[in-house]
Amino acid sequence: MVTFLTDFGYGDEYAGVCRLVMTTADPPARVVDITHGIPPGDVRRGALALAAAVRFSPRAVHLAVVDPGVGTNRRAIVLQAGGHHLVGPENVLLMPASEALGGVEAAFDISDTPLRVGDSDTFHGRDVFSPVAAALAGGAAAGEVGAPVGFSDLTQLDLPRPEITPEALTGHVLFLDQYGNASLDLYSEALRRTFLTESVAVWMETPRQKMMIPFGRTFGDVATGEPVLFLDSSGHLAIAVNRGSAASRFGLVPDDVVRITPAASA
Amino acid sequence: MVTFLTDFGYGDEYAGVCRLVMTTADPPARVVDITHGIPPGDVRRGALALAAAVRFSPRAVHLAVVDPGVGTNRRAIVLQAGGHHLVGPENVLLMPASEALGGVEAAFDISDTPLRVGDSDTFHGRDVFSPVAAALAGGAAAGEVGAPVGFSDLTQLDLPRPEITPEALTGHVLFLDQYGNASLDLYSEALRRTFLTESVAVWMETPRQKMMIPFGRTFGDVATGEPVLFLDSSGHLAIAVNRGSAASRFGLVPDDVVRITPAASA
Amino acid sequence: MVTFLTDFGYGDEYAGVCRLVMTTADPPARVVDITHGIPPGDVRRGALALAAAVRFSPRAVHLAVVDPGVGTNRRAIVLQAGGHHLVGPENVLLMPASEALGGVEAAFDISDTPLRVGDSDTFHGRDVFSPVAAALAGGAAAGEVGAPVGFSDLTQLDLPRPEITPEALTGHVLFLDQYGNASLDLYSEALRRTFLTESVAVWMETPRQKMMIPFGRTFGDVATGEPVLFLDSSGHLAIAVNRGSAASRFGLVPDDVVRITPAASA
Repeated sequence: MVTFLTDFGYGDEYAGVCRLVMTTADPPARVVDITHGIPPGDVRRGALALAAAVRFSPRAVHLAVVDPGVGTNRRAIVLQAGGHHLVGPENVLLMPASEALGGVEAAFDISDTPLRVGDSDTFHGRDVFSPVAAALAGGAAAGEVGAPVGFSDLTQLDLPRPEITPEALTGHVLFLDQYGNASLDLYSEALRRTFLTESVAVWMETPRQKMMIPFGRTFGDVATGEPVLFLDSSGHLAIAVNRGSAASRFGLVPDDVVRITPAASA
Repeated sequence: MVTFLTDFGYGDEYAGVCRLVMTTADPPARVVDITHGIPPGDVRRGALALAAAVRFSPRAVHLAVVDPGVGTNRRAIVLQAGGHHLVGPENVLLMPASEALGGVEAAFDISDTPLRVGDSDTFHGRDVFSPVAAALAGGAAAGEVGAPVGFSDLTQLDLPRPEITPEALTGHVLFLDQYGNASLDLYSEALRRTFLTESVAVWMETPRQKMMIPFGRTFGDVATGEPVLFLDSSGHLAIAVNRGSAASRFGLVPDDVVRITPAASA
Repeated sequence: MVTFLTDFGYGDEYAGVCRLVMTTADPPARVVDITHGIPPGDVRRGALALAAAVRFSPRAVHLAVVDPGVGTNRRAIVLQAGGHHLVGPENVLLMPASEALGGVEAAFDISDTPLRVGDSDTFHGRDVFSPVAAALAGGAAAGEVGAPVGFSDLTQLDLPRPEITPEALTGHVLFLDQYGNASLDLYSEALRRTFLTESVAVWMETPRQKMMIPFGRTFGDVATGEPVLFLDSSGHLAIAVNRGSAASRFGLVPDDVVRITPAASA
C-alpha cells in the first residue's frame, strides 16, 4: 500500500497522473490518499499532516511531495523507519513522520533511480517518486531503487521551543486547520502536571488579544460562538471557537506566540 | 465496502487518517468516497447529499461524519436500513438516507464501542466511526460493535412544508450545488398533475426577484445566461442558469421561499 | 480500470454517486480519479488535462465528463484509440486524449444505451456514462453498449496556431495550473533548433508586460519571486515565478499571445 500526500491541489491532473504511474507498476500499487490540499510549497504543514497520519497507518510506503526545490540539487530520497518506507524530496517533509514511526534507520538517494519515467525537471512526483513508491510497495528492496546514504545529517524541522513552567505555558501556533482550529506546540503529556484543570478557565494572551478562556474537552462544551482550549486529536493544546473559527476570531497565523497563565494571574 | 461522506474538507489530513484506520482493519475495508466537501457543520446538506447517493449504492456500510456536537452527550450510532448499515453521529445526518433505503430497522449505540482507536474527544471520525464502519464492512454484526437501542424517537430532519395547489406551487430552496443550481422541495411525482408543462413558461417569485421562466428539460434548452426550471437528477424541481449560476443570479440561499404560478396569473 | 475526470467539483456528491454506480456493476469497476476540479464547463481545460494524463495510463477506460450540453441533442459516445476506451459527451473533451493514444479507431453512440440507470436529462455522468464505462472495464465490447458511428467528422479542439521562426516564437497561453504556471502551445520538439539556449535570457512580450526572462530548467533556477521560462512536465514552454504565481504576476489568461525573441532584439 502507498499513502499519498501532496500540495498538488485538486484543480489539476497532477495527483491523478501519479496514481496512474503507480497503477502501471507490476504489481499495481494500491494508493490511499491522505490529502493533496497542503498549501503550495508549505513543507512544514505537509510534514505535520504526514506525521499525524502515519501514526494510524498499517505498515506502508508513504509518498509525500511538497517540493519547491524540484529540479535543483536537492536529492530525492527514501527513508526507512519502523518497518515503513517514506519517499519524497530531501527537505524536512519526511522527518516528523519518520520520528513518529520510531526514527530513521536507513536512507537511500533515488535521484538517479533506474525506475524513472518521463524526463521532466519539474514533476519528480510523476517521474521519480511514484515509480519508486510503487516498486517498494510491490516488494522491491530500497537498495534496488536507490543508493544507500548517510542520514545523521538530514535536516530536521526547526521549530520554536515552547516553555512550560509552574506559572505559565508559552507555546506557538503550529498550524491552523480548515475549521479554523489552532494547534499549539504544547503536548498533552507535558501538560499533565500543570495548572490546567478541566472546566477551569485560564488567562490566554495571543499577539492580538487577551482573554479568559475555558479549558474543555470539546467544542460543544461552550456556547455557539464561544472560544475554548482543548487537547486536539493529535494531543496538542488547541484553540477553537464552537461552530466558528479561532483563526479568524483571534487573527492567528503559524508561529504566533500564545501564553497561558492561571486565571488568578490576570 | 464503506462509502464515506464528511465535512472534513480537502486541506487537512482528516479524511485520509480515517481511510488509514479503515485500511488497518482485518480485512481492510474498501472505501469509496462520496464527498468530503460538505460545508463545515452543515448537517442538513450532508444529510441530503447522503440520501441522494445511497439510492445508487450497492449494499454497503455508509460512514458519514458531520458532527458539530462531537464529544458532547450526543450518541454515536449505527442504523440498519434495507440491508445497509449507516454509521455516524446521532443527529439528523443519517435519517434521510435511512428513509431512502426503506426506513430504520434497528439502531445501535456505539459510543462505548470496544473497537475504539485513539482517545480524542474531537475526532470520533477517526476513533469511533471508522473502526466500526470497517468492522461492519468486514462482516461483524452490529450487536458486536454496539448496544441495541430504540429508534422510534430518533430526530428526523425538520424541513418547511411545500404547498401544491391547482393555482400555485410554493416551495423552498433545499440546497445549492457548486454549479449554483438551486434544488427545491417540490418533487417530480407531486408535480405530474399540476399546470407545469414542458417548454411552457411560468411565473416565478423568489425573495428578491419575480420573472417569467421556462420549464425545460435541461440547461441547454435555453440560451447561455438564461434561467430555466427543470427536474434535477434527484427529482427536485430546480432553478438553473445555462452556463451560469442561479444562486448568484437570484441571490438564493437555503430555505428561501419560491412561488410558481401559471403565466396567465402574472 | 476506469480513470475518472470531471468538472463536478468536490463540494457535491456527484462524483461519488458515479463511483457508486460503477461499483454496482458486475464485476465492480476499479476507479482511479484523475481530477474533479476542472472549472465548470471548461471543456478545453478538461481535454488538455485528460490528454496529459492518459499518456501515463496503463490500458484503461477513460471516463470524462465536462458536459455543458447535457440533455440537448449532443450525443454520448465511446471512442477506441490505441487499445483504450474513452467515454463521454460528444464535444472536444475526448479528442486530444484520443490523439495522444494514437488516434480514434472506432466510435460508438451510447445515447440510447440499454445500460442506462436513472432517467435524468442533466446527469448523464451517473445515468449513461458511468454504467457504460464500468461495463467496458468489465470486458464488454463497445458494440454491446452502443451503436457504431462514423468518426471522421468528430469536432477537433480548435486552437490558435503558434508560429516559430528563426527570429521569434509566437505562442498562446494554453492553460494555467493551480500554482499559477502558464503553459504555452510551444512544444519542446519544435523548440530544439531555435535560439532558446539553457541559462540564456530572452525577451518576452505578454499582453500586459515586456521583460527579459531567463530560460531555465526549473523554478529553483531563479531567486524566490523571480520569473523563469522552462519546459513543463508535458513538454510545453511555460512561464513560472519561483514560489509565486506567473498568472498573477503577468495577469495571464488562456489564449493570451506571448512573443519571445532573442535578447539582442530588445
